[in-house]
Amino acid sequence: MFKLISELYPICRSITGEGVRETLRILEGIVPIEITEVPTGKKVFDWVIPKEWNIKDAYIQNMEGEKIIDFQTLNLHVLNYSSPVNETVNLEDLKKHLYTVQEWPEWVPYRTSYYAEKWGFCMSHNQMESLKDEKYQVVVDSTLSQGHLTYGEVYIKGKVPDEILISTHICHPSLCNDNLTGIAVCANLARHLLKTDNYYSYRFLFVPGTIGAIAWLALNEKKLKLIKYGLVTSLLGLDNVFTYKRTRSGNTTIDKIVEHVIKKETTNPEIIDFIPYGYDERQYCSPGINLNMGNLTRVPYAQYPEYHTSADNMDLISQIALEDSLSIFIKILRFIEQDRKYLNLFPKGEPQLGKRGLYDHIGGHNDSKTLQMALLWILNFSDGIHTISDVAIRSGIDIDIMAEATEMLFKAGLLKKL
Amino acid sequence: MFKLISELYPICRSITGEGVRETLRILEGIVPIEITEVPTGKKVFDWVIPKEWNIKDAYIQNMEGEKIIDFQTLNLHVLNYSSPVNETVNLEDLKKHLYTVQEWPEWVPYRTSYYAEKWGFCMSHNQMESLKDEKYQVVVDSTLSQGHLTYGEVYIKGKVPDEILISTHICHPSLCNDNLTGIAVCANLARHLLKTDNYYSYRFLFVPGTIGAIAWLALNEKKLKLIKYGLVTSLLGLDNVFTYKRTRSGNTTIDKIVEHVIKKETTNPEIIDFIPYGYDERQYCSPGINLNMGNLTRVPYAQYPEYHTSADNMDLISQIALEDSLSIFIKILRFIEQDRKYLNLFPKGEPQLGKRGLYDHIGGHNDSKTLQMALLWILNFSDGIHTISDVAIRSGIDIDIMAEATEMLFKAGLLKKL
Amino acid sequence: MFKLISELYPICRSITGEGVRETLRILEGIVPIEITEVPTGKKVFDWVIPKEWNIKDAYIQNMEGEKIIDFQTLNLHVLNYSSPVNETVNLEDLKKHLYTVQEWPEWVPYRTSYYAEKWGFCMSHNQMESLKDEKYQVVVDSTLSQGHLTYGEVYIKGKVPDEILISTHICHPSLCNDNLTGIAVCANLARHLLKTDNYYSYRFLFVPGTIGAIAWLALNEKKLKLIKYGLVTSLLGLDNVFTYKRTRSGNTTIDKIVEHVIKKETTNPEIIDFIPYGYDERQYCSPGINLNMGNLTRVPYAQYPEYHTSADNMDLISQIALEDSLSIFIKILRFIEQDRKYLNLFPKGEPQLGKRGLYDHIGGHNDSKTLQMALLWILNFSDGIHTISDVAIRSGIDIDIMAEATEMLFKAGLLKKL
Repeated sequence: MFKLISELYPICRSITGEGVRETLRILEGIVPIEITEVPTGKKVFDWVIPKEWNIKDAYIQNMEGEKIIDFQTLNLHVLNYSSPVNETVNLEDLKKHLYTVQEWPEWVPYRTSYYAEKWGFCMSHNQMESLKDEKYQVVVDSTLSQGHLTYGEVYIKGKVPDEILISTHICHPSLCNDNLTGIAVCANLARHLLKTDNYYSYRFLFVPGTIGAIAWLALNEKKLKLIKYGLVTSLLGLDNVFTYKRTRSGNTTIDKIVEHVIKKETTNPEIIDFIPYGYDERQYCSPGINLNMGNLTRVPYAQYPEYHTSADNMDLISQIALEDSLSIFIKILRFIEQDRKYLNLFPKGEPQLGKRGLYDHIGGHNDSKTLQMALLWILNFSDGIHTISDVAIRSGIDIDIMAEATEMLFKAGLLKKL
Repeated sequence: MFKLISELYPICRSITGEGVRETLRILEGIVPIEITEVPTGKKVFDWVIPKEWNIKDAYIQNMEGEKIIDFQTLNLHVLNYSSPVNETVNLEDLKKHLYTVQEWPEWVPYRTSYYAEKWGFCMSHNQMESLKDEKYQVVVDSTLSQGHLTYGEVYIKGKVPDEILISTHICHPSLCNDNLTGIAVCANLARHLLKTDNYYSYRFLFVPGTIGAIAWLALNEKKLKLIKYGLVTSLLGLDNVFTYKRTRSGNTTIDKIVEHVIKKETTNPEIIDFIPYGYDERQYCSPGINLNMGNLTRVPYAQYPEYHTSADNMDLISQIALEDSLSIFIKILRFIEQDRKYLNLFPKGEPQLGKRGLYDHIGGHNDSKTLQMALLWILNFSDGIHTISDVAIRSGIDIDIMAEATEMLFKAGLLKKL
Repeated sequence: MFKLISELYPICRSITGEGVRETLRILEGIVPIEITEVPTGKKVFDWVIPKEWNIKDAYIQNMEGEKIIDFQTLNLHVLNYSSPVNETVNLEDLKKHLYTVQEWPEWVPYRTSYYAEKWGFCMSHNQMESLKDEKYQVVVDSTLSQGHLTYGEVYIKGKVPDEILISTHICHPSLCNDNLTGIAVCANLARHLLKTDNYYSYRFLFVPGTIGAIAWLALNEKKLKLIKYGLVTSLLGLDNVFTYKRTRSGNTTIDKIVEHVIKKETTNPEIIDFIPYGYDERQYCSPGINLNMGNLTRVPYAQYPEYHTSADNMDLISQIALEDSLSIFIKILRFIEQDRKYLNLFPKGEPQLGKRGLYDHIGGHNDSKTLQMALLWILNFSDGIHTISDVAIRSGIDIDIMAEATEMLFKAGLLKKL
């Protein structure tokens, strides 16, 4: 994953344009992705797909002909979605188009202007302070024109059409934790699911933030009823506490599963209630859509100093954190796969396990072996109400042991699939 | 308010009689009050309006002709509702008619005998102990006769007929915290509401305790269905923690609002579940009436040493505490006024705020400004279920900012009133 | 109770056989018990009543003719339900039939083999380690043949047919805390109820574990709808914390009552959620039966070192602990008896208690006397929803005072029985 991120890092992504296409092409090397192009001007709910933005070059050159900042070195230097410009301006006018971050004077901020046409540059606060009062040539060699918004989907068909949705945003340029770690983990999670036999169907969305999610929702509104629940994710590369933001309802199955997994498997996880701010859960959880989508990250949204600056680079993240994040997602998927109901066919008293070879014959000692306990838990709660995941969470027994016990009971004819 | 209280303090109030009438006449100087007279003998639910009690004078005089206690000095000296008497009694017989409070031997207690005709006096325990074994002339120049029970109402019509009820008792004589502070704050709160443009209608009741509340309920039973919820109040003059006793159900809107406000705006508030003892919430929350009435005070019912003694006087209370109490009530009213639902007319994804001038154009920085957050909260939760107050409480955003954001969204055509 | 236990202690009980019959005969000296015999081979839900086991003698004799262990000294020495044997075996073969408990090398474990025919012996680990490598004669003089499973019932008819079920297991041989203390407390509780005038009907089950409970359920399935709720109990002889395992639903009336009583009346009680393991609540709370049965003990199931060993003997338990356990059950029964609804016939405001002689006449002092508070609590919550037990739990007022207050209000015509 770290290697994939280093390959994606230099690309100048935005909500539209070649950067997104190149990113999705690279992901195709990992999983088959279906790419959708939505034309400029297309109405998607209350929004309209904007002009496609592409950029070849951008720089500020001083009177000595020296490029004091250069898009080729760091694509954050240009205001993302900057309209083209080629002018000579004095320092005072230049400053009206400069963005810095005063609290971290050495870092270059990431700024965007998608829906108001402006030109602009981002630089470190220190550099801005040191600018001499002279004339500067400002060049942004970009285009804003009819084109498309591009997003990618990976659909993995399971035994049932009911879908689990996992969404990550792909619109940020050279920023690592936000958003390349989300992309890398999601691509590898999809690859993992392609190799396993899945009960549920899974859909991964690689979409530009806000407008991409809205476009996908608008174009797929009729299919939304198939979605049981899902997760929005990103910020997975820091060795920090897992942070789960609940769904809008706050007590759905995905909430119970994720909270259980991160409490059991990670240290000091943070769990917060839904707020209508953050990533694309804003769109998925809007009142007219109201999907049960939680948000799982390794740090609360925007709550790290490097967020949206040049310091969110390859040095910030680690392969260990990425692998850790992936393994937690895989654990979550194990619970999701067991989010199914069975019916105990011998519900009056316990069925006699001994005669079916499912119970120790020498009684009297404290036979609390986990697998035997799993059998009892599943039999007692396979009542048409509880799923195997519910019982795993309630009993605290590992989900893999629960799956094994379910299979044993099913094979012994004690359970019926619901 | 302190001045009003000092004017009301000397009056000898009871559950009937001229003291209540004079009190209401003084309040008329602050707000227009509608006064109701309920005749003696009138049946009100399980009760009957008692004879009206009035008193001119009362004293105990020793054999030297010295008045050892005198109603003119302190009206607590007479057993409230004492029947008339003019006798000479020996010390032993006198003591059968004396009430003191042994734990606080310098204070004169407040005692009543509304429904059993008795004569009696209250004095300090020290004074009683020092009485010489001689004869005493006891005089209570009172009348108990056909008359009326008197109560006052302030009704402030709002845009909708749905009512908020605020009730305080007015039957205590020279006692300050209990009940003059409640009277003063309620009168000033009513005056405040007369000056504002209100969505809900408000009704303030100034009623004698128990029998007055029961009389009002009995005479207004058909109108009770208009009452959304309300508060019983008193004990507002101590600089003590706010104490909220929940409604009988315990989780109604008024509970959520008051608990939120006192937790956010005051230090270490105390919140307790409903108990069927205390002030007139006993009547309003009786099972056949079952109004959603909470009880807000600055000290738990009866839980201060000066309670119902001569020490509950002008020295005990402060203008600062009164103003503080009033301001908390005004804050509560702001939430009540926003206890209304709107419907997001663009509920699929977020509506595009930028094109309506409701959003910063330069994205990428952490735009968590409170007003912008308020817009997102209101849009997400204007789903036909949540009120603006609900969203204010859930988000923790100030109710005034929420009101402003609601107005902005409504004017931009994004919300519909429900 | 301690005396009863010492009489029951030497008997070799099992899930069938003369030991159970003798035990029930002794209990008949305390309460009238109806005894049921269920024949071998009878199908009870998924189970079949096994052959009846009886035993006359069992021992291991060494080559010197010395009985190294002897059933007559301690019946735990034989594997419970051991098939008959009379052989001479070498040490190696003998060891395959020996059961010990390594952690407590001086204690003899209790082991069973009900459903797989085996012969075997239990001894201390120390003794096994010291066995010489020689030949041993092994004798189990037992029979396994057509017969019956035996259980006992005590039914105590109340004013209504709705039943409270109390169940304890009776299948363990010389083990005191588990199960003789349960038997002794239940028998004495039944005797207590025979002397009182009860609203509810009570049924006590003295059943062999698992198969006995299943047999009773299978034979009485049609009557189960009369059971409101109940308790499974045992482990009542240790001076340890009360431990309550909730019903399967976890928030039923019996849960509320038992939790309230043990929190109020005992020190540091432990309350745990239902798990499908333990005593016969496994059967009563199986999904197709789903009775509201909690489990009350003085130590969590199996969580004491002496559990199922020879150390669970008369020295382990105390008469004081037994009496304490009985008194808690009696307190619980007081709440159960008040788990009834009344209707306040004067629900609009408070009824005037004074005119009915139910209220102090001199008002003004803090009249929080418990009985008067009980009157107010009952009147306010006798709304067709709450039972007297509910109100006792909510108010914290003692159940006996609540019962007294209910009677006063009922006699005064203020309440109607529902």
